[in-house]
Amino acid sequence: MTYCVGLRLNRGLVMMSDTRTNAGFDNFAKTRKMFTWNTPGERLITIMTAGNLATTQALVSLIDERVKAVGDRDPSVLKAPSMFQVARMIGSTLKEVIADSSAYGQRSDMAFQATIILSGQIKGTAPTMFLIYPEGNFIEVSSETPFFQIGETKYGRPILVRAYDEDMSFADAVKLLLVSFDSTVRSNLSVGPPFDLLVYENDTFKPLVDRRIEQEDAVYQSISNGWGDALKAAFERLPSFDLTQPGDRSS
Amino acid sequence: MTYCVGLRLNRGLVMMSDTRTNAGFDNFAKTRKMFTWNTPGERLITIMTAGNLATTQALVSLIDERVKAVGDRDPSVLKAPSMFQVARMIGSTLKEVIADSSAYGQRSDMAFQATIILSGQIKGTAPTMFLIYPEGNFIEVSSETPFFQIGETKYGRPILVRAYDEDMSFADAVKLLLVSFDSTVRSNLSVGPPFDLLVYENDTFKPLVDRRIEQEDAVYQSISNGWGDALKAAFERLPSFDLTQPGDRSS
Repeated sequence: MTYCVGLRLNRGLVMMSDTRTNAGFDNFAKTRKMFTWNTPGERLITIMTAGNLATTQALVSLIDERVKAVGDRDPSVLKAPSMFQVARMIGSTLKEVIADSSAYGQRSDMAFQATIILSGQIKGTAPTMFLIYPEGNFIEVSSETPFFQIGETKYGRPILVRAYDEDMSFADAVKLLLVSFDSTVRSNLSVGPPFDLLVYENDTFKPLVDRRIEQEDAVYQSISNGWGDALKAAFERLPSFDLTQPGDRSS
Repeated sequence: MTYCVGLRLNRGLVMMSDTRTNAGFDNFAKTRKMFTWNTPGERLITIMTAGNLATTQALVSLIDERVKAVGDRDPSVLKAPSMFQVARMIGSTLKEVIADSSAYGQRSDMAFQATIILSGQIKGTAPTMFLIYPEGNFIEVSSETPFFQIGETKYGRPILVRAYDEDMSFADAVKLLLVSFDSTVRSNLSVGPPFDLLVYENDTFKPLVDRRIEQEDAVYQSISNGWGDALKAAFERLPSFDLTQPGDRSS
């Protein structure tokens, strides 16, 4: 499995992905799931991938080849005029890779599927984010849906739903993501550190932060260890449930 | 779907179940998923059910019939000498119901499956809890696995993992369950209030609390509404992640 989250904030975009990949419990490894193409001052495009590793690696290699092949007839994500066009290109490439792997090349086989979070900004257009499905179609981030998750999304969702705020600082957004990732890691063996982090500030066309957060990272450790105590404090702030109130069937 | 949780505490057992059942988005209803058989002063047995509603209703009806049929050759959960024997009886009844529904009566069809949390105490033995699988086999609660969840378990798990404490009071345990249920309800339409609650204090052989918590319940509402603020306070207690620390690939 995998866990990746992309947040759209008023000040920019924050992306985090885990690095664990596995084909069964006895066959796991560390792999990068976040990929960035950047023309400084002009565009920054990042994707995060979940699903079949052969599919996502082929997708990234195809995007890479088209970026590097000068004068190629195939379109490059570094030349597309808008993020919408980038999403279309990546969606159709994804669909093509899945179709190639499928037994009869006609319908996307579950086993070869992958899902993508695409985010970034191209000069002259607004920063945005898309969730691209294995079928090649996609949805765009909005004020009602300001973040996307892919992979093992359930454990880490409640804290995102509760604590996300479009006005939050980048530091708070990263802290929120670390809590969400930590909740997932503690519940599911198929998601694991280190985590890749990319922070993009609107209209800068380069990463503000692009780093890997290791399991041993002191702040991650103190967030991971401190969250239990912090939750207990939060828990104590809540009103108690009066067990003896009316409506008890046993009395 | 469904969400049910059973907690084993040092002072007793706490069970909570939701009441939403559905066969598609346009066909949903409210149904009870918690059932109790009690011989005051001698035994209390509670089950919570998740899965195919026809299967779980047939299971409960069969247990009920066997309890009521005086002199029946079939064993009754009110006569079994231990909770382990109750678990075996319910497990084999469950397997039988699933086999009856399956097309060829040979293997349990996914569509007819159900999972059960059984809990209670029989005089002369310790209070305990079992998770019974569709195959009829089961596992028992332990100090390493002090609670069981069935149904839509992922959203509500992180708070249980973090805040559960075997020494907690019943009031705190109910509060914890309401937070876990609220996190689930907010993320998944197939789980919904009201919630059924049963609290059992060790060696009492009757329910301490047996009630339904409605959506409008004032304490549930204040827990549901207050949890967001409480989480934010918890969040602020955590250290901030320094975005400029060494290791940044973009600098």
